[in-house]
Amino acid sequence: MKIYRVRPGAKVKLSDYSADGEAELLGDKDRSVVQLDRLKEDLRQLQRMLYAERRHRLLIVLQGMDGSGKDGTVRSVFSGIDPHGLRVVSFKSPTPEELAHDFLWRVHKEAPARGELVVFNRSHYEDVIAVNVKNLAPRPVWEKRYEHILNFEKLLVDEGATVLKFFLHITRDEQRRRLQARLENPEKHWKFNPEDLADRRLWPQFSNAYEEVLGRTSTEAAPWYVVPANRKWYRNAVIASIVRDTLLRLELKFPAPAWDLSGVTVE
Amino acid sequence: MKIYRVRPGAKVKLSDYSADGEAELLGDKDRSVVQLDRLKEDLRQLQRMLYAERRHRLLIVLQGMDGSGKDGTVRSVFSGIDPHGLRVVSFKSPTPEELAHDFLWRVHKEAPARGELVVFNRSHYEDVIAVNVKNLAPRPVWEKRYEHILNFEKLLVDEGATVLKFFLHITRDEQRRRLQARLENPEKHWKFNPEDLADRRLWPQFSNAYEEVLGRTSTEAAPWYVVPANRKWYRNAVIASIVRDTLLRLELKFPAPAWDLSGVTVE
Repeated sequence: MKIYRVRPGAKVKLSDYSADGEAELLGDKDRSVVQLDRLKEDLRQLQRMLYAERRHRLLIVLQGMDGSGKDGTVRSVFSGIDPHGLRVVSFKSPTPEELAHDFLWRVHKEAPARGELVVFNRSHYEDVIAVNVKNLAPRPVWEKRYEHILNFEKLLVDEGATVLKFFLHITRDEQRRRLQARLENPEKHWKFNPEDLADRRLWPQFSNAYEEVLGRTSTEAAPWYVVPANRKWYRNAVIASIVRDTLLRLELKFPAPAWDLSGVTVE
Repeated sequence: MKIYRVRPGAKVKLSDYSADGEAELLGDKDRSVVQLDRLKEDLRQLQRMLYAERRHRLLIVLQGMDGSGKDGTVRSVFSGIDPHGLRVVSFKSPTPEELAHDFLWRVHKEAPARGELVVFNRSHYEDVIAVNVKNLAPRPVWEKRYEHILNFEKLLVDEGATVLKFFLHITRDEQRRRLQARLENPEKHWKFNPEDLADRRLWPQFSNAYEEVLGRTSTEAAPWYVVPANRKWYRNAVIASIVRDTLLRLELKFPAPAWDLSGVTVE
């Protein structure tokens, strides 16, 4: 599969990345749905070992424009694995208590423990993206955050975590279709927020902010992946296979018993 | 289906409850697996509304002897639903910080928020069961906890939560088979704890403690169900259908938009 990983220090132009993906590499949709089922079964098995072994920690960060499919990714890729070792954290607008602390305070609290797979649906990256685009703070305030984000993620990795960051890449046209679908489907009305329309008008500014983030914060230890996300099945297959391959490289195993079980019988 | 609900104030004898269930009521195993898939699909749909509506809270308490299938229930019944609104809390031996507080302190923190479905894998009931059977505190200490448990659950319900409590009922013979399987399967060694064998010798004492708990803490608002759990597929179907029926009674719906969407278009 084509590598969607952002080279550290790269000058990222999102227009260089396809939002559609390359169908010939993943096969067609029908094949891909079968493939996703197989990938999800792999994930299920690998996560059981991750949880049993309690040695590694896995953090997955999902970012992307409104409608890029963060919620759908969680539902499609991560449902089905044992809910015991899985935690999804949706970062919303900070509460007054959270705002009374530094921007990483609420994030650090949610970092994965040994054996956990934690998915951040939005993350500390909003503090250099939304804050930038919407002028919630002047540049000198959030400019310094880049350094702290890099230091924070290095801390997690040095202490044994694995960090994967996915940018769900859709086109502006695809966003229109998806926001329109939220208007037309009563089951999706609750997801519609007029603020999304205001944000949509800031598409070029958001794109610029993401390009800056992707180039400056993709590291060997905590890489960014630009995931073609115009087609949901393609996005799911890409993410599931990167997570699967990452877990495989951890050489997880069911732990040996902490005591000698020989001769033990249950009466 | 037979009602497994414990009448408030009942004098419970576990030997009056079948651990095998009644096959003729649920059909055979093959039919039941199909039925479970259908129940899980219902749960998936209902939980989406629960999460979208953010009006109700659902707390599910799982208790039972070692090997009774608490972990398996979580994996079999609750995997597959959207991980966003689902949280599983496994209560282990309390940490020093937890022990420095009252026994409900760590429990209250984990109560469901609006829109959440939270599963307690073990719970505050260990503080009147394990503590009783293993003499971790004298009776006057934990005897008073009954009142506090009832008050606590009433608080949750009065403030809008729905509480379901499941006792997974297996026989002593079935426990032997399951603990033995943990010894024989290297993938299950990590779940084997020699302390389980010591607890197994206290089977009658645990049974007595559970009988006391079931009779004294099953209330209209927060009922206990004695679930036949010798057969995993039967246990799963019973729990899934009680949860499904409970969610149906909440009359969940996708919320209306908080603003007027008429005439709104996405440009």
